[in-house]
Amino acid sequence: MAKKIVVYGLETVPKIEPGDDLAKIIVECAEKEGVGIEDGDIVVVSSKIVSKAEGRIVPLENVEVCEKAVELGEKTGKDPRLVQLILNESEELVKVERGHIIVKTRHGIVCANAGIDRSNVAGREDVVVLLPIDPDKSARSIRESIMKLTGKTVAVIITDTYGRPLREGQIDMAIGLSGINPFKDYRGKKDWMGYTLKIKRIALADEIAAAAELVKGNGGEGIPVAIIRGLEYRVSEKASARELNMIREKWLFR
Amino acid sequence: MAKKIVVYGLETVPKIEPGDDLAKIIVECAEKEGVGIEDGDIVVVSSKIVSKAEGRIVPLENVEVCEKAVELGEKTGKDPRLVQLILNESEELVKVERGHIIVKTRHGIVCANAGIDRSNVAGREDVVVLLPIDPDKSARSIRESIMKLTGKTVAVIITDTYGRPLREGQIDMAIGLSGINPFKDYRGKKDWMGYTLKIKRIALADEIAAAAELVKGNGGEGIPVAIIRGLEYRVSEKASARELNMIREKWLFR
Repeated sequence: MAKKIVVYGLETVPKIEPGDDLAKIIVECAEKEGVGIEDGDIVVVSSKIVSKAEGRIVPLENVEVCEKAVELGEKTGKDPRLVQLILNESEELVKVERGHIIVKTRHGIVCANAGIDRSNVAGREDVVVLLPIDPDKSARSIRESIMKLTGKTVAVIITDTYGRPLREGQIDMAIGLSGINPFKDYRGKKDWMGYTLKIKRIALADEIAAAAELVKGNGGEGIPVAIIRGLEYRVSEKASARELNMIREKWLFR
Repeated sequence: MAKKIVVYGLETVPKIEPGDDLAKIIVECAEKEGVGIEDGDIVVVSSKIVSKAEGRIVPLENVEVCEKAVELGEKTGKDPRLVQLILNESEELVKVERGHIIVKTRHGIVCANAGIDRSNVAGREDVVVLLPIDPDKSARSIRESIMKLTGKTVAVIITDTYGRPLREGQIDMAIGLSGINPFKDYRGKKDWMGYTLKIKRIALADEIAAAAELVKGNGGEGIPVAIIRGLEYRVSEKASARELNMIREKWLFR
């Protein structure tokens, strides 16, 4: 009868340290919590624990700042060492306005502060977490390990929390993925009455990221892993979360 | 152990006609499909069936066009009668570029074509569906009726599908709501390590809309109602989806 999707949030994931084997931890926690891993599951992982496992942690005291970082720091009221890291992580400075630094990261994501997170790292306020270097690759690696450990076919999505240009509040979005096509594509299809659909292409991976956030809390370190069960999706071995980044030529808002 | 949220999609909702009692239909379908309605459920309804129930259907042949609509129609390649309706539904023309008409609707939503939907109406291509006049009020009315019919306390969110300025693909967002605070608010809170959180305010209602879309298909008429069960949220009797619209003064992208 009714269609049904279940979103589980794993509550026993420990504090992640550099070098930790995330796939093994996820499989063990899922087992321990009675959820397990099943064929077709989508494992949604907060980027922060991926970054930590990959050692993408930088003490600000180690950062040498250039002139531009000092200048931008003064303009925005941000620590110039943080600004330096933002610049390092970025392909392009998109906008500096009212204390915000909006960049296009090396992954092609347009966001504030290059996704650098200052909260909740190693018990120190002067240590920050950078985004994973290649979130698609991180997703691929976690996916392959989970499939090896369990014998089940899964997809993996890595998410981060972002503000949006025209909406209040932040939501989680997909920044890396493996094993899933990020879109539900209705382009050219007719609906059940025979008319061409207004809705052309749903950003499925972003919707999954948002759904996973529902079981997370406080920025996703309390519950950094969600498992989505029962959702139909197109398996893809070569899909990338980069497909979700709109190219600048298509921007209507600048 | 694991946190758990369930998203149900009601598969037996009939084609909606003007005057239909949506609350009654939702309660009956939920019952029939073995889902029922429980305390704390969030009922997520696609705006299209709300519009239809409220008779927000316009045959294009009845539309008289003004000069501006003709001009904009020529500029964008759109039917001037559709353009006229877009103008009627809008408070402000935000941007006309490359065939897109982006407006601020009378509800304060910034979107293409004032959310007017051309597909799948009454079996005719020359009939369009406008957004509900007051989606918060529609949500309130559906909520009150469901609560009266079932004796259960629920929240109601009305959703529509929109593109996003910097991301590919569309996702569902909340355009009307009742009984739920649209945000999870962490402003000023410290995380579990004692540091102020980077993540300040999650647009919970938009995430719920996205999660509900996961069980819908083809633009949400096949499955136009989802029920979300097991999610904690702050009940609010006076919240509005308008709180999700960022005021122009705060826009970084224009």
